[in-house]
Amino acid sequence: MERLNVLALSGSLRTDSYNRKALQIAKRFASEWGANVTEVDLRELDLPIYDGDIEAKGFPESVLKIKSAVEAVEVLLIASPEYNHSISGALKNAIDWLSRGDNSLNGKIAAVFGASAGGFGTVRAQPHLRQILEALNVLILPQPQLFIKTAHEAFDSDGSLKDKKTEERLKKLVHQTLEIASKLAQK
Amino acid sequence: MERLNVLALSGSLRTDSYNRKALQIAKRFASEWGANVTEVDLRELDLPIYDGDIEAKGFPESVLKIKSAVEAVEVLLIASPEYNHSISGALKNAIDWLSRGDNSLNGKIAAVFGASAGGFGTVRAQPHLRQILEALNVLILPQPQLFIKTAHEAFDSDGSLKDKKTEERLKKLVHQTLEIASKLAQK
Repeated sequence: MERLNVLALSGSLRTDSYNRKALQIAKRFASEWGANVTEVDLRELDLPIYDGDIEAKGFPESVLKIKSAVEAVEVLLIASPEYNHSISGALKNAIDWLSRGDNSLNGKIAAVFGASAGGFGTVRAQPHLRQILEALNVLILPQPQLFIKTAHEAFDSDGSLKDKKTEERLKKLVHQTLEIASKLAQK
Repeated sequence: MERLNVLALSGSLRTDSYNRKALQIAKRFASEWGANVTEVDLRELDLPIYDGDIEAKGFPESVLKIKSAVEAVEVLLIASPEYNHSISGALKNAIDWLSRGDNSLNGKIAAVFGASAGGFGTVRAQPHLRQILEALNVLILPQPQLFIKTAHEAFDSDGSLKDKKTEERLKKLVHQTLEIASKLAQK
């Protein structure tokens, strides 16, 4: 079959974001598996905050860009931080735009994971993210789930995860998601 | 490929339960699709409430029975009522037993839905059910989701749903789940 197309997305924007770092590892695993991998950077993209009055005038360029980027792939890799027990406003706003007009997320398959400096590693945000994405018909594997805790100590200077078991789990998450996506893409 | 095996389960026990009724419709759709369908009746089964001291003496006969019934199938149909904003203790207790020893639910695919007499149709219980089942590596399609509200008025005397759109949605839920299960069962 043809190669799977994957879009990677971090819900946290700062340059040294742990989720950006984890996402780079996930992207590498997806490439090694044999997928075409691209990334959309929410900071660079600079989406407006969703506003029905903006939408009424037509989708802004940045919205069209992320909608077509998502529509062009079968699989999403989403790294989400946890802000106040849920996902970031940045990520929620991107999802809200993606859901407008034709739901660009419809039928996608996603691998979701997250990193936080605290001791729970986004364990409260991820059920929210799953529930939101399920509302938009995105399939997410039940397991493995991945929570990178004490993320300020989790990465080596080369960007890899110090704990090789966690890295292995991230690899499993990405590869299993791609394998399922590949099976479901069969006619 | 071989026929898929399906196990149906209602989280509500009373004879005239709306969830039992909805489950019978779902079973019919699964049979029509071509699956082997059986049901486990939690009232007849009469599982003890989970107790680590009982477990330490070995699984009771009823627990072994439901564990092997689940292990023998690829797909579950689960109708869940909503009690106090979550799933019933009956259903949670069954899941708790199934998770003990080897997790009997591991790798299963489930179609979940629910009925309630209120105006929300189990919309608060179902995210709980999904989160619990995901913890046990059960795959559930993101959509369609099905909430049968005002269930005391929803069924005809022959057990069918009065609203044919809702019945069609239940059919879609069952058939799509079986189609995905069938694709994933391919080598």
